[in-house]
Amino acid sequence: MHNPFNAGVGPDSGILSPVRVNSPTESLVDDDAWVGAMVECEAALARAQAHLGSVPRVVADTITRVASEAHLDARKIAVASRQTANPVVGLIAEFTEMVKGADPEAAEYVHRGSTSQDILDTAAMLIAKRSFNQIAAELRATADLLESFANDHFNTLMAARTLGVHAVPTTFRSKVRGWRKLVMDALSRVEELTAGKLPVSLGGAAGTLAGYIEFARLANVPLASDPEAYVRALSGSFAREVGLAPSAPSWHALRTPIADIAAVACFVTGALGKIAVDIITLSRSEIGEVAEPGGEGHGASSAMPHKRNPAGAAMIRSAALQVPAFATVLQAGMLAADERDAGTWHAEWLPFREILRLAGGASYTTLHLLEGLQVYPERMQANLDSSSSIMLTERLAIELTKTLGKQEARSLVTRLSSRSRDSNRVLLDVVREDATVMQTISDDRLTALFDPHTYLGVADR
Amino acid sequence: MHNPFNAGVGPDSGILSPVRVNSPTESLVDDDAWVGAMVECEAALARAQAHLGSVPRVVADTITRVASEAHLDARKIAVASRQTANPVVGLIAEFTEMVKGADPEAAEYVHRGSTSQDILDTAAMLIAKRSFNQIAAELRATADLLESFANDHFNTLMAARTLGVHAVPTTFRSKVRGWRKLVMDALSRVEELTAGKLPVSLGGAAGTLAGYIEFARLANVPLASDPEAYVRALSGSFAREVGLAPSAPSWHALRTPIADIAAVACFVTGALGKIAVDIITLSRSEIGEVAEPGGEGHGASSAMPHKRNPAGAAMIRSAALQVPAFATVLQAGMLAADERDAGTWHAEWLPFREILRLAGGASYTTLHLLEGLQVYPERMQANLDSSSSIMLTERLAIELTKTLGKQEARSLVTRLSSRSRDSNRVLLDVVREDATVMQTISDDRLTALFDPHTYLGVADR
Amino acid sequence: MHNPFNAGVGPDSGILSPVRVNSPTESLVDDDAWVGAMVECEAALARAQAHLGSVPRVVADTITRVASEAHLDARKIAVASRQTANPVVGLIAEFTEMVKGADPEAAEYVHRGSTSQDILDTAAMLIAKRSFNQIAAELRATADLLESFANDHFNTLMAARTLGVHAVPTTFRSKVRGWRKLVMDALSRVEELTAGKLPVSLGGAAGTLAGYIEFARLANVPLASDPEAYVRALSGSFAREVGLAPSAPSWHALRTPIADIAAVACFVTGALGKIAVDIITLSRSEIGEVAEPGGEGHGASSAMPHKRNPAGAAMIRSAALQVPAFATVLQAGMLAADERDAGTWHAEWLPFREILRLAGGASYTTLHLLEGLQVYPERMQANLDSSSSIMLTERLAIELTKTLGKQEARSLVTRLSSRSRDSNRVLLDVVREDATVMQTISDDRLTALFDPHTYLGVADR
Amino acid sequence: MHNPFNAGVGPDSGILSPVRVNSPTESLVDDDAWVGAMVECEAALARAQAHLGSVPRVVADTITRVASEAHLDARKIAVASRQTANPVVGLIAEFTEMVKGADPEAAEYVHRGSTSQDILDTAAMLIAKRSFNQIAAELRATADLLESFANDHFNTLMAARTLGVHAVPTTFRSKVRGWRKLVMDALSRVEELTAGKLPVSLGGAAGTLAGYIEFARLANVPLASDPEAYVRALSGSFAREVGLAPSAPSWHALRTPIADIAAVACFVTGALGKIAVDIITLSRSEIGEVAEPGGEGHGASSAMPHKRNPAGAAMIRSAALQVPAFATVLQAGMLAADERDAGTWHAEWLPFREILRLAGGASYTTLHLLEGLQVYPERMQANLDSSSSIMLTERLAIELTKTLGKQEARSLVTRLSSRSRDSNRVLLDVVREDATVMQTISDDRLTALFDPHTYLGVADR
Repeated sequence: MHNPFNAGVGPDSGILSPVRVNSPTESLVDDDAWVGAMVECEAALARAQAHLGSVPRVVADTITRVASEAHLDARKIAVASRQTANPVVGLIAEFTEMVKGADPEAAEYVHRGSTSQDILDTAAMLIAKRSFNQIAAELRATADLLESFANDHFNTLMAARTLGVHAVPTTFRSKVRGWRKLVMDALSRVEELTAGKLPVSLGGAAGTLAGYIEFARLANVPLASDPEAYVRALSGSFAREVGLAPSAPSWHALRTPIADIAAVACFVTGALGKIAVDIITLSRSEIGEVAEPGGEGHGASSAMPHKRNPAGAAMIRSAALQVPAFATVLQAGMLAADERDAGTWHAEWLPFREILRLAGGASYTTLHLLEGLQVYPERMQANLDSSSSIMLTERLAIELTKTLGKQEARSLVTRLSSRSRDSNRVLLDVVREDATVMQTISDDRLTALFDPHTYLGVADR
Repeated sequence: MHNPFNAGVGPDSGILSPVRVNSPTESLVDDDAWVGAMVECEAALARAQAHLGSVPRVVADTITRVASEAHLDARKIAVASRQTANPVVGLIAEFTEMVKGADPEAAEYVHRGSTSQDILDTAAMLIAKRSFNQIAAELRATADLLESFANDHFNTLMAARTLGVHAVPTTFRSKVRGWRKLVMDALSRVEELTAGKLPVSLGGAAGTLAGYIEFARLANVPLASDPEAYVRALSGSFAREVGLAPSAPSWHALRTPIADIAAVACFVTGALGKIAVDIITLSRSEIGEVAEPGGEGHGASSAMPHKRNPAGAAMIRSAALQVPAFATVLQAGMLAADERDAGTWHAEWLPFREILRLAGGASYTTLHLLEGLQVYPERMQANLDSSSSIMLTERLAIELTKTLGKQEARSLVTRLSSRSRDSNRVLLDVVREDATVMQTISDDRLTALFDPHTYLGVADR
Repeated sequence: MHNPFNAGVGPDSGILSPVRVNSPTESLVDDDAWVGAMVECEAALARAQAHLGSVPRVVADTITRVASEAHLDARKIAVASRQTANPVVGLIAEFTEMVKGADPEAAEYVHRGSTSQDILDTAAMLIAKRSFNQIAAELRATADLLESFANDHFNTLMAARTLGVHAVPTTFRSKVRGWRKLVMDALSRVEELTAGKLPVSLGGAAGTLAGYIEFARLANVPLASDPEAYVRALSGSFAREVGLAPSAPSWHALRTPIADIAAVACFVTGALGKIAVDIITLSRSEIGEVAEPGGEGHGASSAMPHKRNPAGAAMIRSAALQVPAFATVLQAGMLAADERDAGTWHAEWLPFREILRLAGGASYTTLHLLEGLQVYPERMQANLDSSSSIMLTERLAIELTKTLGKQEARSLVTRLSSRSRDSNRVLLDVVREDATVMQTISDDRLTALFDPHTYLGVADR
Repeated sequence: MHNPFNAGVGPDSGILSPVRVNSPTESLVDDDAWVGAMVECEAALARAQAHLGSVPRVVADTITRVASEAHLDARKIAVASRQTANPVVGLIAEFTEMVKGADPEAAEYVHRGSTSQDILDTAAMLIAKRSFNQIAAELRATADLLESFANDHFNTLMAARTLGVHAVPTTFRSKVRGWRKLVMDALSRVEELTAGKLPVSLGGAAGTLAGYIEFARLANVPLASDPEAYVRALSGSFAREVGLAPSAPSWHALRTPIADIAAVACFVTGALGKIAVDIITLSRSEIGEVAEPGGEGHGASSAMPHKRNPAGAAMIRSAALQVPAFATVLQAGMLAADERDAGTWHAEWLPFREILRLAGGASYTTLHLLEGLQVYPERMQANLDSSSSIMLTERLAIELTKTLGKQEARSLVTRLSSRSRDSNRVLLDVVREDATVMQTISDDRLTALFDPHTYLGVADR
């Protein structure tokens, strides 16, 4: 039978998730970052209790010092987690031993009054905050880049496409400003989250914080006689120590922060995924309006030497296809039973990390892709020209509405469009042969109507 | 072969979705409501254009009057939607005929410059706003109800349960206040959404609004020479007419409002689902701490005359299990290609309606369930008593920490707990036989330590 | 306050789900079909019990006759379902009244020994079987159509595309045969399901079937003394009456059939969605290799008279985007607690119907789309020509491998490809200028190497 | 700015996914296993080509030997994957260098005619096969264990619960046999998959295999003149070398095997999740009918010394809550565009590994949990007794049907049940006071009717 204590374990190299490899967010969420954040929380909790008199200050200092130097073995903690279904019990055992090495007395105060979920949830919020701060920086840089793209391309015409088919003329600037709008929407949701929706977790064994208060009583802390006041002070102090929002009441089984994070991560990858989808489309061989930065090996194929694949966009899209699915686990996790659930909480951890990592990978990859994105205005123009007159049918029908009425005008233009398509002739030429049109519209006016530069609506600057 | 014009169609009776039957939201989102909202949007758009001079005011009045009286056949429109993959083209044809019956001239101005997606997206926002307003009212009433529950039960002790196992003593008030916190969180998210995140949709054929502007030019509207200004004015006016937020730029392929709605609907059913899950648990035969309102047939079984099932909670939970799954379609829909996508938009409609309907059904059902919820404090006490002394182990270990140190204290209490469990004896009795404990703690103190009333933390009032 | 007995309800017109409108499957799964199937199950159960002697034959005949003529009001049943969280209790009340009208004695035998879930689950299987039989017929017709497409296009060359970029030459036949393979895979999974994986549900109140057996004892049925034998006989008889597989043991909380159906529905829409995605791509203005059937209004736009949108493919894709999300509710429903769950079962019904309806809509729409699909070999050739020489780089590198070695060959061809792209010149011309190549390969051989007709691999017939 | 070549990376320790830590499947799917499987595939492909004469046998031997000894750095490959959006290009570069070290000539034959997706997809199938073989072994052992549980408990009565409420009497044996049925259903689906639904992937650059054939031609392989025959032979040979099924045609964009794997993994965790959910319920403090194995630290809490949490069941349930969500990414991936997609394939890898790892973790954890599961028949009896008479209402109503008719009987028993509940009296006592009942049923018969041992249906052995 398999030996449960064989602790061999490989790296979390990202080999199956290229989008996040080497992104700054990657190292903010890896196993060591989680172990580190949990230890950080234990130290911050000791300091917060020291502020209130429940823990001696010197003890809190010792715990903090040991925490800042501790290197715990993530795998050993993982193996221990099989016993209790969470990694905190094993981590505390390891960490307590380390503190004991520095000062046996201080070891008595580690995790005082606390419970696994307080530590793991707070660590999760810390990690989310750092990840989203990084993502926010990347989104800001992306928005700036898109702004300069828009400025560079204010007069680059291109075909607007709906259901894949040329619709009306537009500008590349207009498309880029749409992308930027989504990025700014994502940024505002990220900022709103990090500004106050990521709280510490404080509940004690089952949400009443009785253990914290009991220890405070034993330490003769005056405030302990008013549990609500003590808890408010403890939560505030803990929050300040780790740079998160205070918590009230315990959210062990009230998963508001998790649901909020899930929604924002979905939004971020959704916004970036839209950009990726457009870049994949515009990079198609027959369209060729943009290309990802080439260079040594980028977008290469193992079979075809000529290939320049939209590799970055494919990676971003892959993230955007995964995150909403993973996020449902978090949203479904709101249905936590009792004061702490047996399973929904445990199901959160892996998708929680993954949506942060994928969102961070997507934002990092988007920024780099856009930094090198090549735009081909001449191909945009050529594609526009290939069906430009057909893209002015809406305008022609509008013009004819005055004299023919809406239905008749629309019906006539539909007929002329079909004739143009069936005969493979330019629409304007077909239109010029139609007596009804020519009686109504002068040839000069017709020429003017078919100029895409004057039918750009708000896509014009 | 099947005849594609056989229009027989049954009712949308809710037979497979009891949670929403007869809820106020149900009729706000049914097929007739969608048809009505689309017609309403056409009329509002005509009025908005009339304000700016693009449409004669009398025409806008006629269109509005016809719209207010129109009864369109949803099935006929649905059948027509097979041609174009959306219901708007068929609806406009029907509606235009109706307007023509009132005034042939006015018919020329229906849907002027517009496109299907402007109408369907705006109608969707209208329906969302009405649904969420209803849901908000129900959440407010639910929060009030929970507040009065909390006040009624400030001194009702019960067992806090973690992973299904008795943990420490708490109060029913504390549990109810947790539920209320989630409901208030849901309410604030709903209110934020309805306060400004539900915009009209205005893009014209492909996001440039060129058609709207061209018609304005034909009508010699001065503002038409400044497309951005005209569009801003049109968007503002349209928004005022329907009571939504203005839109800039077109969000045909930038699905921020849809993603926001998905997130909020998930949150609402997640919050209510948590309450339902707790009620199902507390209603278990062995627990029996609450029961749903009985009465004629409620919670009845087709087989067992004695049954009083948590039928309301089961329905609410069923909604909460569905909504996150349906919502992923909307979140994934952010990856819309081009200026309008071929499929992601079309995939939104059904889950969009369903998450509103399920959220509205859940909020209505929760309110009614809570109005009649029966609470049995004596069963809470009895369950607490059945293992109350065991629930004070955290406290005993804290007390012993002073003299024995953390590890030794914990280890001793774990041993005593096991002995109590294995021998089926009350823990306190087992503790009293332990010399180490009795040397450390006086019997009076021990009795006091095992009083759950004094170990409630913030669950105490 | 809202009146819970206001039974106004609109049609389930399909206005938000065009893909399924007027498909044969639509009417197989609507509310009336569910009511009908449940009544059918009650009658079949009475006949099955009659075969075993538990119910008088004349009674079973009466129940069957009333069932075949019954028209129950789905909305009334839906409203009643609010009391018990399922529609069966109300349905039985209605149906029993009808039987009583025919024969008061017979009414005593309706739903004898049974429970709501036996009826609703069996009705669900009936509906699934009918839907999948219809879908199977459509998949078979689709496969035949694709076979004839493949035969028609055995020598139509086109570009194979990977990551959106031209890769190597292929044939339209090869693409179509890939589609057909998926359709056949879907068909085999559907057939396997309908051949024996859709069982009746028989469990009685909580899986023991004690009620069925007790009634059999009261009727002095000899077999009743051997519960297992009686139940096996009853299950077999019930199964034969409705044309499903027998059930053993009760699957009230063992949701194998539901999970199987979810997987197969996902597969069906996934397979058809792949075809739709390809058609959308090939219909793009710049590609133009296929087009959906035109004709009166098909693919029309409300704004642009020239438009011929891939409306059918967009609808099919919309179904394929929804079904996997809805199916997760069914897969998650395997986690049913106890002998019957409070919520997971109730969450199944709506997505269960919807995935059948969407799969049926997708298969119907695919068949009709393909019947009229227009293929443009000359556009395929033109697109191929636009980059055909570049698509032979793999072959050139292979040829050069002999003399230059793999790395050197690959590196040289990559350089030549870049030069061709940067200078906008045909690759073959660039290659001809390269001394290394020309020393190695004769000009005739080079010309032959760049002939796409001879580099088709298995895409050639 | 962040340095993209900083290759520091932590372990994939499982700290956020305890369910899979130290399970045998864990090491079958880790990064090193993927790297190893890809190298294995390159070697097997060379051998397969050697069988057909396209590659010299001695070269294939060299490649195989190097592959068997190769230790590639997963992180280095992951970093390289950023360039091409997949790990294979970088892996081939590394591996080719290694082969070159052994024999420069042999290096020419690595990855001959192949493409990244052939290697990665085949490696994925290898990993899936090994994982599912392990899972199958664990499921078989679990089924055996459950069979012996069932045999041990053939006469252990317990309450059947529906919607959380006592329904009718059943046996623990019956419950366990239900679990076993699900496990066997899972096993049969796993076995069907591994028996022939996991194929090698062979498509070459874009599904035509032209590169493989061209190399065969260059090597003067006679069969190369018949592409279909050559490919069939190559596929068969490759399949034999790696122990998978042959492939025809290329499934680069026809994702049948992926969809099948997703469905089976969902089924496995769904089946095991059902067991976990039941164990969590039965472990509740008030129910206490089973308990997980205790022992050193198992199920411990960081706060409460007395706790014995259902830690194993919570872990299993956490896996079952995640897998269906992750699986949707794979099912949605069937919508792959063109001959190879830009994003859907890339989105598969991470959830593909994760569903195998979670399924393997769940099956391993279930087996170990059940090996130590403690069952308390006396608590089952006590819980049954606490409401046993109420659980016989179905039977009483059946008995009364003979004389009173169905409706009257049911109505009477409902009244008596309510009276029993409201007065907190045993139902049988209340029944005995009812004149109607006592006129109909003798007291002895009544006593017999209320004996749960004789109302077990098929739960009786």
